[in-house]
Amino acid sequence: MATIYRVNMTDLSVRAEEPGDSLEGMGGRGLTSTIVASEVPPSCHPLSAENKLVIAPGTLTGTGAPCSGRLSAGAKSPLTRTIKEANSGGMAAIALATCGVKAIVLEGQPADGKLRRLVVSSDGVKIEPADELAGLGNYDTVAKQFDEFGDKISCISIGQAGEMRAASASIAVTDVEGRPTRHCGRGGLGAVMGSKGVKVIVVDPTGGKRPKPADSNAFKQGVSKFNDALKGHPLTGEGLPKYGTNALANVINAAGAYPTRNFSDGQFEGTEPISGERQHDVIVERGGEIAHACHRGCTIRCSRTYVDENGEFITKGPEYETIWAHGADCGIDDLDAIARMDRMDDDLGLDTIETGATIGVAMEAGIIPFGDAKAAFGLLEEVAKGTPLGHLIASGAEVMGKAYGVTRVPTVKGQAMPAYDPRAVQGIGVTYATSTMGADHTAGYAVAPNVLGVGGNVDPLKPDGQVDLSRNLQIATAAIDTSGLCLFVAFAVLDDPTAMEGICEMLSGLYGREFTADDFLEVGKRTLAAERAFNAAAGFTAFDDRLPDFFRKEQLPPHNVTFGVPDEELDQVFTGIE
Amino acid sequence: MATIYRVNMTDLSVRAEEPGDSLEGMGGRGLTSTIVASEVPPSCHPLSAENKLVIAPGTLTGTGAPCSGRLSAGAKSPLTRTIKEANSGGMAAIALATCGVKAIVLEGQPADGKLRRLVVSSDGVKIEPADELAGLGNYDTVAKQFDEFGDKISCISIGQAGEMRAASASIAVTDVEGRPTRHCGRGGLGAVMGSKGVKVIVVDPTGGKRPKPADSNAFKQGVSKFNDALKGHPLTGEGLPKYGTNALANVINAAGAYPTRNFSDGQFEGTEPISGERQHDVIVERGGEIAHACHRGCTIRCSRTYVDENGEFITKGPEYETIWAHGADCGIDDLDAIARMDRMDDDLGLDTIETGATIGVAMEAGIIPFGDAKAAFGLLEEVAKGTPLGHLIASGAEVMGKAYGVTRVPTVKGQAMPAYDPRAVQGIGVTYATSTMGADHTAGYAVAPNVLGVGGNVDPLKPDGQVDLSRNLQIATAAIDTSGLCLFVAFAVLDDPTAMEGICEMLSGLYGREFTADDFLEVGKRTLAAERAFNAAAGFTAFDDRLPDFFRKEQLPPHNVTFGVPDEELDQVFTGIE
Repeated sequence: MATIYRVNMTDLSVRAEEPGDSLEGMGGRGLTSTIVASEVPPSCHPLSAENKLVIAPGTLTGTGAPCSGRLSAGAKSPLTRTIKEANSGGMAAIALATCGVKAIVLEGQPADGKLRRLVVSSDGVKIEPADELAGLGNYDTVAKQFDEFGDKISCISIGQAGEMRAASASIAVTDVEGRPTRHCGRGGLGAVMGSKGVKVIVVDPTGGKRPKPADSNAFKQGVSKFNDALKGHPLTGEGLPKYGTNALANVINAAGAYPTRNFSDGQFEGTEPISGERQHDVIVERGGEIAHACHRGCTIRCSRTYVDENGEFITKGPEYETIWAHGADCGIDDLDAIARMDRMDDDLGLDTIETGATIGVAMEAGIIPFGDAKAAFGLLEEVAKGTPLGHLIASGAEVMGKAYGVTRVPTVKGQAMPAYDPRAVQGIGVTYATSTMGADHTAGYAVAPNVLGVGGNVDPLKPDGQVDLSRNLQIATAAIDTSGLCLFVAFAVLDDPTAMEGICEMLSGLYGREFTADDFLEVGKRTLAAERAFNAAAGFTAFDDRLPDFFRKEQLPPHNVTFGVPDEELDQVFTGIE
Repeated sequence: MATIYRVNMTDLSVRAEEPGDSLEGMGGRGLTSTIVASEVPPSCHPLSAENKLVIAPGTLTGTGAPCSGRLSAGAKSPLTRTIKEANSGGMAAIALATCGVKAIVLEGQPADGKLRRLVVSSDGVKIEPADELAGLGNYDTVAKQFDEFGDKISCISIGQAGEMRAASASIAVTDVEGRPTRHCGRGGLGAVMGSKGVKVIVVDPTGGKRPKPADSNAFKQGVSKFNDALKGHPLTGEGLPKYGTNALANVINAAGAYPTRNFSDGQFEGTEPISGERQHDVIVERGGEIAHACHRGCTIRCSRTYVDENGEFITKGPEYETIWAHGADCGIDDLDAIARMDRMDDDLGLDTIETGATIGVAMEAGIIPFGDAKAAFGLLEEVAKGTPLGHLIASGAEVMGKAYGVTRVPTVKGQAMPAYDPRAVQGIGVTYATSTMGADHTAGYAVAPNVLGVGGNVDPLKPDGQVDLSRNLQIATAAIDTSGLCLFVAFAVLDDPTAMEGICEMLSGLYGREFTADDFLEVGKRTLAAERAFNAAAGFTAFDDRLPDFFRKEQLPPHNVTFGVPDEELDQVFTGIE
């Protein structure tokens, strides 16, 4: 039975706890949200001692289930003030599961304000001083750990942004090569980790044991069926490995939904130079790597390594949303410049989506001009220096907009919208508006049936059917985020019934009892209900489940469409769930 | 009959409108709130074309009623996102009433982003270009108007902060000497004026006629009775003229309710050097003026002129809240330095309370040290320069706190608390929490019965009775703010029944029909109900009627008390009003 470690940063003590029955079958997001909702005072300041940061692998993580290496982090968010979960690939989740860890719960706050390191092994959790890591970026921070502990470890760390307690600070997770390229990006959870005084969590799986399914035959049968479904789907089997997530750039731009220059246009004239196809060619030509797995056991391999003209590693991917945020949203069409901003974000420990969107708002405010990649990089250097402008950049689009009197600020519940304009993909607009965590495409990826023809076809420009779509996707997503499976498995699940069968067979094998698709979705509903209850107790109401006014008033070219889903329909998204 | 002027800044047109019956008996705050609540979309961005800025003298303004020269400005606030009214002394309200203006409503937004000037006379309102005023402070802005129009005019203007659309920007009103020393301070209404592209409103009363009471004998009788009551009360007759509002410094400090170093103590060791008594002596010694009236017809004369060692004018007052904000809250005990900050705030057009509180938060964030007056002044210079740090300072305490991850931010609904710690004056805590406009002492000044022994005695350290107290004061205040009377008349009203009789007789005389105390309070209730309805439609709920968590958790020395009014009681403040 896996263990929950309570790490009290006030008195620097660690307590191992066997999880109670109520946490049975909970992992990942389901577990982080259940603990946060039941233990964190909803009205507390997110950076105060009362908040808790919960870090948990998914239920399937470490079992050998394909694509099951997601690591969830959860807390009350300093960016949105809602409950928050953000998950990441990389190797740490598998390492934690191998150490027998169900969750690490960071509690309290050190009175001395000093930084510390946690070292996790199958023997438990140790707290150590880490003064010498203060002010380091994620790359240097983890490099020192690998030097000290060898290459078997994984790291969960924060950069300068987390130390600054910046509302866009991410939590970095090391990848297969030991680089801090994977991130629990959204909602400023790195600031919560920083407020706990934890710079890095080193996870050493040496001597640990992977979780063993109760019924290994049933489990293996599920793995095989699931693998076949993933390989058989055109996106997970071909598109994502070859072109990565950024295959979307041309697709979303063609759909007129590619937010350009702070959501003022739906098409970017500079899409081709930053498209997934161009990215593929540049990487292959320079000797980078496509079809790269962010963790062992990933069969989709949507990641890549992006190198410079001399073949030197710059960064992973970058992903579609990152390239959009630092690219089209800022009017920038220089892929190398974007890759260097992604690297800088990863090193500082900043959410690439929020950061790019914030730079877009800064451009609208006139701080720097749209299209100026050099100046945009300069803003990231301000973060590194900790200047007032750097603090503004690291605080997200909403704060930037307030500080400069900008009226067009594309946020919901204080979190910037990702790379899909909700006017031209109305289903994702419903998800942005109603998600328990602010504007978040991964909370219910309606882009699939709206634009990609995956999971059916729903007209993206019309409000019809979008609420039901978003509801079903939000439920399924909360369940997937609990399992530790990568969200990209949903493409197969949506189109091929055998994918869901495979998941249920894996979970049945894991638990040694029947686990149905209904059981799976029930976990999603329970998770959403806990999140909604926390938010309601923190004062969030239907009024917060709205897009900013300008999405209903400004027509988006080229379709000249506004967001049309009525408020009353938005208020039906969670009917039957809470 | 007075006229409402609709000034459309989109097409640069002016429309004169006779007010409908529903606006009968409404002026000042009652009028601004009624118009904003019925015409401004609650979900709009406060700096967008959809917001409206309403400027209105009170119902008694210009009639010769003592102390009736308040000017109200109202809009949706960029600071709080609630409805907002802020009122100011100075000469403009009387001048507007003399021009026959019931209200000026600024609507729309100019597409060219240029600045303009409005010129108001008894002939109406003209819109003129004002490019040459761009970037000027209030002092230079109004000096140019007096040069051009002569000394009969009054000005309503914004400084650099309003042009920056900063959330702490005030609207300045010229005083008897033509200086921009009086301000509609709170809630960033100067940013709304800036967003309309209006730099200054010149009001020329030449040729106008003061409003004439329908029954001048009854009116005169009321004036006489009211005057006697004001002169007979120890505060309005003696204390305020002699020591000004800053007589409170020693009183509130003695009560242990003087917020010190960002609300971390209730007593400031440097109170004496910044007290009203010391201020009095310095002013008298240097040849400044005490017992100064901020508008003609003020018999209380709480203002003063503060001069330097050579007798040169620095600024008015400064007021108690200003001296606290730039003084005790920042750990600064240098009266001259505070006076120069007040002057700088007035010139930039910044709310002194919000600005001082923001500097206090900046000090807690470590940007500059507590107690460093020179560095504090330097932060105001950043505003003048328009740097990122200047934008942060001008955006208020909440945004500053978010940008630097500060957990102790003393705001309600995004607005900084003024100079009374709600733990040691629990009645004002109820007002801060529940006011329709964010933390605001003037919305229901429970300090009077809690600390000053005016209007009864209610133990300031206990929750008992505070909700009823705050309710009654909020109703009466909304009525007073509608009449154009200065809030300081409330001291006499609370202690001497003839003061209210005088007000009712003045209003009866004005309208030529009986006007009772109940009628007076009914206006207050109607105003509050309109404001609450607007806020509810903008998404505000009981959860917003709360103090920040730390006031319930951190004990305030020297009484070591926390805020104790239960949430359920806070939710009873508006019972029977909406």
